[in-house]
Amino acid sequence: MNHTLDYTPILDAIHRDLQPYIGTGRVADYIPELATVRADHFGMAIVTVDGQVYRTGDADVRFSIQSISKLFACTLAFQLLGDALWQRVGREPSGTAFNSLVQLEFEAGKPRNPFINAGALVVTDVLCRRFVQAETALVDFLRRLSGEPGIDYDLRVAQSELANAERNRAMAHFIASFGNLEMPAHAVIDAYCRQCAISMSCVELARAALFLANGGVSPVSGEHVLDASSAKRLSALMLTCGTYDAAGDFVYRVGLPAKSGVGGGVIAVLPGEFAVCVWSPGLDTTGNSLVGSLALEWLTTRTGRSIF
Amino acid sequence: MNHTLDYTPILDAIHRDLQPYIGTGRVADYIPELATVRADHFGMAIVTVDGQVYRTGDADVRFSIQSISKLFACTLAFQLLGDALWQRVGREPSGTAFNSLVQLEFEAGKPRNPFINAGALVVTDVLCRRFVQAETALVDFLRRLSGEPGIDYDLRVAQSELANAERNRAMAHFIASFGNLEMPAHAVIDAYCRQCAISMSCVELARAALFLANGGVSPVSGEHVLDASSAKRLSALMLTCGTYDAAGDFVYRVGLPAKSGVGGGVIAVLPGEFAVCVWSPGLDTTGNSLVGSLALEWLTTRTGRSIF
Amino acid sequence: MNHTLDYTPILDAIHRDLQPYIGTGRVADYIPELATVRADHFGMAIVTVDGQVYRTGDADVRFSIQSISKLFACTLAFQLLGDALWQRVGREPSGTAFNSLVQLEFEAGKPRNPFINAGALVVTDVLCRRFVQAETALVDFLRRLSGEPGIDYDLRVAQSELANAERNRAMAHFIASFGNLEMPAHAVIDAYCRQCAISMSCVELARAALFLANGGVSPVSGEHVLDASSAKRLSALMLTCGTYDAAGDFVYRVGLPAKSGVGGGVIAVLPGEFAVCVWSPGLDTTGNSLVGSLALEWLTTRTGRSIF
Amino acid sequence: MNHTLDYTPILDAIHRDLQPYIGTGRVADYIPELATVRADHFGMAIVTVDGQVYRTGDADVRFSIQSISKLFACTLAFQLLGDALWQRVGREPSGTAFNSLVQLEFEAGKPRNPFINAGALVVTDVLCRRFVQAETALVDFLRRLSGEPGIDYDLRVAQSELANAERNRAMAHFIASFGNLEMPAHAVIDAYCRQCAISMSCVELARAALFLANGGVSPVSGEHVLDASSAKRLSALMLTCGTYDAAGDFVYRVGLPAKSGVGGGVIAVLPGEFAVCVWSPGLDTTGNSLVGSLALEWLTTRTGRSIF
Repeated sequence: MNHTLDYTPILDAIHRDLQPYIGTGRVADYIPELATVRADHFGMAIVTVDGQVYRTGDADVRFSIQSISKLFACTLAFQLLGDALWQRVGREPSGTAFNSLVQLEFEAGKPRNPFINAGALVVTDVLCRRFVQAETALVDFLRRLSGEPGIDYDLRVAQSELANAERNRAMAHFIASFGNLEMPAHAVIDAYCRQCAISMSCVELARAALFLANGGVSPVSGEHVLDASSAKRLSALMLTCGTYDAAGDFVYRVGLPAKSGVGGGVIAVLPGEFAVCVWSPGLDTTGNSLVGSLALEWLTTRTGRSIF
Repeated sequence: MNHTLDYTPILDAIHRDLQPYIGTGRVADYIPELATVRADHFGMAIVTVDGQVYRTGDADVRFSIQSISKLFACTLAFQLLGDALWQRVGREPSGTAFNSLVQLEFEAGKPRNPFINAGALVVTDVLCRRFVQAETALVDFLRRLSGEPGIDYDLRVAQSELANAERNRAMAHFIASFGNLEMPAHAVIDAYCRQCAISMSCVELARAALFLANGGVSPVSGEHVLDASSAKRLSALMLTCGTYDAAGDFVYRVGLPAKSGVGGGVIAVLPGEFAVCVWSPGLDTTGNSLVGSLALEWLTTRTGRSIF
Repeated sequence: MNHTLDYTPILDAIHRDLQPYIGTGRVADYIPELATVRADHFGMAIVTVDGQVYRTGDADVRFSIQSISKLFACTLAFQLLGDALWQRVGREPSGTAFNSLVQLEFEAGKPRNPFINAGALVVTDVLCRRFVQAETALVDFLRRLSGEPGIDYDLRVAQSELANAERNRAMAHFIASFGNLEMPAHAVIDAYCRQCAISMSCVELARAALFLANGGVSPVSGEHVLDASSAKRLSALMLTCGTYDAAGDFVYRVGLPAKSGVGGGVIAVLPGEFAVCVWSPGLDTTGNSLVGSLALEWLTTRTGRSIF
Repeated sequence: MNHTLDYTPILDAIHRDLQPYIGTGRVADYIPELATVRADHFGMAIVTVDGQVYRTGDADVRFSIQSISKLFACTLAFQLLGDALWQRVGREPSGTAFNSLVQLEFEAGKPRNPFINAGALVVTDVLCRRFVQAETALVDFLRRLSGEPGIDYDLRVAQSELANAERNRAMAHFIASFGNLEMPAHAVIDAYCRQCAISMSCVELARAALFLANGGVSPVSGEHVLDASSAKRLSALMLTCGTYDAAGDFVYRVGLPAKSGVGGGVIAVLPGEFAVCVWSPGLDTTGNSLVGSLALEWLTTRTGRSIF
């Protein structure tokens, strides 16, 4: 393939053509702090495995990464446990909403995958057991992967999350009731809320995810994050489970492994080529960034580049 | 990428290493005719987009393609309706068993995707409305795609299907009760059972699926089956929904878009390179060929070639 | 207790006080024939175990008994099988809609109780196996119990039912797929639709149900329908399961075992005293007669007579 | 009816005939303290509305009343809120297990009835809001109703409950996430666990429940607990919802409104006549006392006295 393609005019054209859509969708309001973000932000960045950075719009503005943190938390947990992780959390699309407890009841406390809330709580439990402060371990990991030592979680967002965490608390206690939590539910919830509150920009996130497009090695830090096979497998998992219960539709339209967050960010990777991150706060009814999904669909359609 | 790789030694090595597993798994017995097939068959064939054929074992023995027919029926229906098809059937993993009625009740008769039974019935309804004999249209399509005019459905298998179709009948009437069936339920069931009873070999199936790896054009017949973008999208759909409710696990292990059948066949494609078909009748608990899944996992692991 | 109470003024007062409500609710329209009935009918009849008949309004107008037929069909099936009936159908409130297939899937084709559609289909299957024409056996039974040889099913309603039976067909085939149907699904559906189409008046239905209030013996025909203990148990079943998924609310408000139909009829019994039938076609959101439920609530509240 | 029946020989005969069954069933072990109770206890007591007490076996031995407390807590909450209580909790049989979270998710945090765990948590929330110590208010209520000032909760059982309350905690936070809890989840859980740990004997419980058989007035304390109509309605609710998801079967067999607990106790009432309590720790698969249910079935069958 051709690594020397200049994405600048493509990103600019997408940005321009998206103007009628920017600001549409519904900004997440389940916690007050998120609801304060303006709907008309749009940023997009591509970072190639050989280090080129292409950007448009608010690509350097930090936003709340929310569920995108689940990808990196899962990577850390997989580093710790390897395939033993899958004894505690599955690898299947959930088929139900990201915060459903129904599946947990039918499947005895084993969450369907690590990218729904229930699965992420188990992942966080793994991190809490290993690290004194799971959220700090994750922040350090993201600082290294992105090369940006200033990355941190937003305390006000974290506190807002903690003040509105009844459903996640229910989930944590429910998982615990099946014996699938090793640390106290309140400790897991605390770390989980802080992880979700991490702030990063499109460029930083694309850099951080680049190891997935590069055989498991971070081109930024040189760190061997995962072996090549595991990196592929994590991408596969992201593909089938990364965009809540809209994964089928997302793959159909975009054709890239991706992980979204209710803050409006989406990261995706094209193996061997690049990682891309787009941010636009307005969500569609499935909880994914409306304009972000469109931007990625246009990117793969216009360049003819996807994994298929 | 390298199209000139010789897959012969790879297939032979996989075949040899699979010996301890061949014969394991459980042959489908939901209809008597299928249960008569010996468990220890194994065949595998790769056909590249430039026409090379690699094979091992029973690669030329015909078997009952069963749900693999759903892929080709869906292709025909998509040719007829285009994206309007998605108003009648979804594009999401089901998250439940391939023959569940629960999802239909919760989602008002719109099946989750065209590769579960409910969705395939809607697809067959589309074909029944257009063709006097839907099963004949599908057989003709497969003859053209594979270049084998002898392909047909097995009447005894079809009759066995029809005699054991209570659950599919329930599904068809249920869909009809929501107004999502245009033809009489019995006519749809009749065509559906005949489609499932089509017999083909690994080589024939790999040839037939090759258009998906070749931008929508069949290298065998030269037929423009789908435009390039639609071919990619159908592959995407196959990836997230093609292996029942084990799609997440299958993608994680194999990393290729695939469609399986309870006859023990599995086809998969690597875009731009090849289509592969494997057959081994013993199934795992998810209804996919146990040895077939293993063979595909080893193929992508040993060659390092998957879509990720 | 006092059997000599004169219910005439009580019924008249209830009828008068109900005037503002008569005509409210929604007439069933799932089949065209039912939708033609005027909403402002109201009839009510009490028949005591010692033969007194009290009536008001349209108490002698025949209407479509619909699901009230389930009570009498269940009685016949219980005569045939006794407690062995409960191996094929349960005795628990369904907790879901009267025509749900979800419970059937989770509980392997054993309906929750004989008063939801699924359970009634199994009951009808029992009758179909024993009688050449199950619907004729039921009509004969109702003629004897009410002393009215003119009772019959309405052919136009039956045909309308048959033309709109997709959901019931789905249910019958689904039950058959679990091996819980002995006769062909189409035969069971045919008999079931004819049973539902039986026409009777409030006075006739109250007479027919009187055996339940009289220790199992029909005061009309003298027939020993059930032994005393079985009559009590059938009343108990009617109490917990007779009014679809509103049984809890109905028992709370009315305090009598009852069975309702979407034709707007409701029958209820006070053991040792009387059977009562009320008819008013407008339904509430749970499918029970809105005015009928109110009439029965007022009857038990004003007389202070219920089973509690 | 005849209030002067001497129940002594009946209770003795039942006790004698139950000998082969006593000790069967499975003692609840979900908390360690309950599991220490010997399985071969059996006690039974009838208290009539005119003050006669009949007893057999361990009728004066105190045991953990567990979910029987839900009946009295619900009575107190109904005294406080009246019918407004039903805006926060339903009156329908659940159709699912007593500790299921599925129904809560489908019905937006409104529990089906006050006798499943979820509903009892809402009831306890009502008491927590009104009383500084809800459990003390309930203990006082039971002391008055039974005339036994020594009644209290067992601190060791309460602590054991609290140490094994993950599922109830999950439920409380889940209800809170829908806005249906006014007090903090931990406070509600604390009071709930203490209530369940109250210890009473069969005689004491039968005395305490007697107001339901006596038009709402306690013959013991003279207290007007509820008006006559409300007492009937609470009995009706107990009938349809009082024995977990076996209510239909229980009513069919026993024919009395009843409330059971996993400690092995069951109370039931025959309106106008008596309250009865039976205790035997071995449970059946539905969580009701195996021998206790049998004892009540024999009582109503042998005396011919039930509500039907």
